[in-house]
Amino acid sequence: MEKTFDKKQLTKKSENIADWYNDVIKLADLADYAETKGCMIIKPLGYAIWESVQSTLDKWFKEDGVQNCYFPALIPMSLFEKEKEHVEGFAPELLMVERIGDEKLANPYVLRPTSEAVIDTAIANWIHSYRDLPLKVNQWCNIFRAEKRTYPFLRTAEFLWQEGHTSFASVDENLEMTFKALNWYKDFYEKYFAISVYVGVKSQSEKFAGAKNTYTIEIVAPNGKALQGCTSHDLSDNFSKVFDIQYLNEKSEKCYVYQNSFGLSTRSIGALILTHGDDLGLVLPPKVAPTQVVILPILKNKEGDTVVIDKANEVANVLKKENIRVLIDSDSNHSLGYRINEHELHGTPLRIEIGGKEIENQKLKLARRDTLEKIEIDEKEVSEKVKEVLELIQNNLLNQSLKLKTSLTKEADSYDDFKNMIENDKCFVRSFWCEDKECESKIKEETKAGTRCLEFDQMGDDNVEGKCIYCGKIAKHKWLFGKSY
Amino acid sequence: MEKTFDKKQLTKKSENIADWYNDVIKLADLADYAETKGCMIIKPLGYAIWESVQSTLDKWFKEDGVQNCYFPALIPMSLFEKEKEHVEGFAPELLMVERIGDEKLANPYVLRPTSEAVIDTAIANWIHSYRDLPLKVNQWCNIFRAEKRTYPFLRTAEFLWQEGHTSFASVDENLEMTFKALNWYKDFYEKYFAISVYVGVKSQSEKFAGAKNTYTIEIVAPNGKALQGCTSHDLSDNFSKVFDIQYLNEKSEKCYVYQNSFGLSTRSIGALILTHGDDLGLVLPPKVAPTQVVILPILKNKEGDTVVIDKANEVANVLKKENIRVLIDSDSNHSLGYRINEHELHGTPLRIEIGGKEIENQKLKLARRDTLEKIEIDEKEVSEKVKEVLELIQNNLLNQSLKLKTSLTKEADSYDDFKNMIENDKCFVRSFWCEDKECESKIKEETKAGTRCLEFDQMGDDNVEGKCIYCGKIAKHKWLFGKSY
Repeated sequence: MEKTFDKKQLTKKSENIADWYNDVIKLADLADYAETKGCMIIKPLGYAIWESVQSTLDKWFKEDGVQNCYFPALIPMSLFEKEKEHVEGFAPELLMVERIGDEKLANPYVLRPTSEAVIDTAIANWIHSYRDLPLKVNQWCNIFRAEKRTYPFLRTAEFLWQEGHTSFASVDENLEMTFKALNWYKDFYEKYFAISVYVGVKSQSEKFAGAKNTYTIEIVAPNGKALQGCTSHDLSDNFSKVFDIQYLNEKSEKCYVYQNSFGLSTRSIGALILTHGDDLGLVLPPKVAPTQVVILPILKNKEGDTVVIDKANEVANVLKKENIRVLIDSDSNHSLGYRINEHELHGTPLRIEIGGKEIENQKLKLARRDTLEKIEIDEKEVSEKVKEVLELIQNNLLNQSLKLKTSLTKEADSYDDFKNMIENDKCFVRSFWCEDKECESKIKEETKAGTRCLEFDQMGDDNVEGKCIYCGKIAKHKWLFGKSY
Repeated sequence: MEKTFDKKQLTKKSENIADWYNDVIKLADLADYAETKGCMIIKPLGYAIWESVQSTLDKWFKEDGVQNCYFPALIPMSLFEKEKEHVEGFAPELLMVERIGDEKLANPYVLRPTSEAVIDTAIANWIHSYRDLPLKVNQWCNIFRAEKRTYPFLRTAEFLWQEGHTSFASVDENLEMTFKALNWYKDFYEKYFAISVYVGVKSQSEKFAGAKNTYTIEIVAPNGKALQGCTSHDLSDNFSKVFDIQYLNEKSEKCYVYQNSFGLSTRSIGALILTHGDDLGLVLPPKVAPTQVVILPILKNKEGDTVVIDKANEVANVLKKENIRVLIDSDSNHSLGYRINEHELHGTPLRIEIGGKEIENQKLKLARRDTLEKIEIDEKEVSEKVKEVLELIQNNLLNQSLKLKTSLTKEADSYDDFKNMIENDKCFVRSFWCEDKECESKIKEETKAGTRCLEFDQMGDDNVEGKCIYCGKIAKHKWLFGKSY
């Protein structure tokens, strides 16, 4: 009854990325389907990755004075309806609680699809004077937005996220925070998830319901489809006027606060899986890998095994002292080959095999998960070499991601080229667009590609004007278009 | 518009503990009422205490091989109904999701009041062979159980908790885990929350719906009322039979797993507030206090202030090096007296005031929050003295709690004495009870006091039999009774 891992179960990524994605999630124990429509179960490896997201971002938030709170998941519909664009934007995907036990509720509740309504209602009572500002709160919680189909991590009816909500006296401070949050996310994606991203602003029709502007991180998946990595919204005083969040300034005048909100969710893990995985399974960047190094003792079921296991423990202890996350897998029920496959499948960045020969020669063999390269080192230099190789892996994954992003982004000067690229090259396309809603929706209707963002890189003064690829009218900027996942 | 703290706003604990409790929660920024019926908002100080609960317990769980996962909050009613006692026990407090957007659901969802149904459905597919056992999962999540009234932390329609769910091949291993979890909780309450507790088993009518036995930690509040601190349930094979969780043993025979589940929630914070708080506000045990030491520079709005602030930073840095959580409050908008009151209200265990005189004499004055005692020390011995005093505070709070518990627990040999103690002494009463449901419910009906638990201390072989205080029949053990919060 040995749980066997048959590599044939794993579809090749290059052949069918959708099937590969489902296979890898199942075989690497990242997530499971649930009986609840549109929902998933996050399994230990998937959740451990989420914990590493949490610990890094939470530290950055706290250093900046953002304080964690917890607000109710149930929002009275009457509060949610206050901001008109907000409720319109979310209406079709709202989960409603209308009964408790046998009692029908006169005033139904919405399960939070985001928490502006409930947080703003509360902080309207917390903010009185300019001395109460800035007010920076965050919560780590579950979020509900109905989905017809489940794409584990990428689209689920319930997901986990953090949502920061901060209020300021001035427009400038508020914008500064909006961009600070976006930069945290960019740093996280690039330095931890090793994913090269696009950073920019959403079009007016794609922004968050109720925001003045939505800033975004956009990721190109290996199949050319677009993933929204997270968002940071400049809410201006839109919500503060609706929820009456006023403070007295130093001259004792009543003023509305300026606000933003920013969130990153478990959807980010979907981007991580898609970006780095290969035909052997998951590939995890060392900085977020729950296990960075796996040590496999080569056991012969003989007396010599004790020496091998002792050596494995010795090496593990040397690495643990350097705060490297090590696991020894000495499962004697499975062959070495099986165990190698398992750890490749689970994406462990570095593998060390130790047997009698290695002990005799005082050498160790490191196997990189990213390049599958094997490196022989002297045992005594193990901690420096392991640290060095983990850094190389982290950097290599980011470089590969940058190459992927670059190769999957093209520029089109004509609508024919645009259509051809979207349809055949399956990539992001950067093109002039006049910023008229009608052109945007026509393009989407005809090609299924929507605006992803206007990159900050395309906003500079030195950018020349051009002609909208759809209508030919003057266009100030080149926007990034892509098909959504 | 200075936010003024008027001590008169805080009801005296000795005069009206219910009002005091509400006042301290509001004034110390622990929680806020929400628009959602029965729900509360956990504010930064309250949430920081929860984070300290999380980090300690989570470490213990992981060291034992318990793995964090995340399961859907929405449980199809059809799954929830499978275990008959389970659904009957929870039915009146279930929040139902019956509509998504405009679409009425044919199969409604229950918002999880606990997750056995959804977790057991999943793990039935994860467990195949004896090699898959034990399986130990845990999740940190929100829980929904309708409440008519809100008692912040103590009773809310939504609360946060962890729920561990573990499965074993044998009855013995399962019981061992059930008690291990209970011991973690006991250690946490005593060594971290500094609360002396009762540990025992629930009566059959008070156990978890669907369990074989529920083990519990019971706390006497200062008003003699009972708080259930957490629970660890021996589910035996009750749920595994319903959800068909079987494995093949070494002889290839199909067997049901034995299971338990254990949970501790944000309700524990209510016990913490009630146990240690006093007429000046909250009192936090150092081990769970987000800020352990507050340094108050005595400022005169003169040139000398810089020296004072420099010294405060110097002392703070010395303490930070020892991993002591320090805050410097140099808010010059408020008087020293105001700031002292604020930090007493927020329960910070230790206060250090630094002014010109202290710098001149190279002395520091430590003020203990628990005893309000002031201790003069040499500045150069600050880190050892602070550590010493923090430990003294932690121990003193536990001792005080033990005294409180002992003074609020009486023994009654007759029903008259029992009624008198419950009514007038307002305390826990330990009495012989025959373990017949009818006596239990009659006692509760007549006195409002229910069984809290049979303490492990009262189970030993050397315990003599006695007569049930209600019916006079033979009773094997003395049970603990009390009015519920």
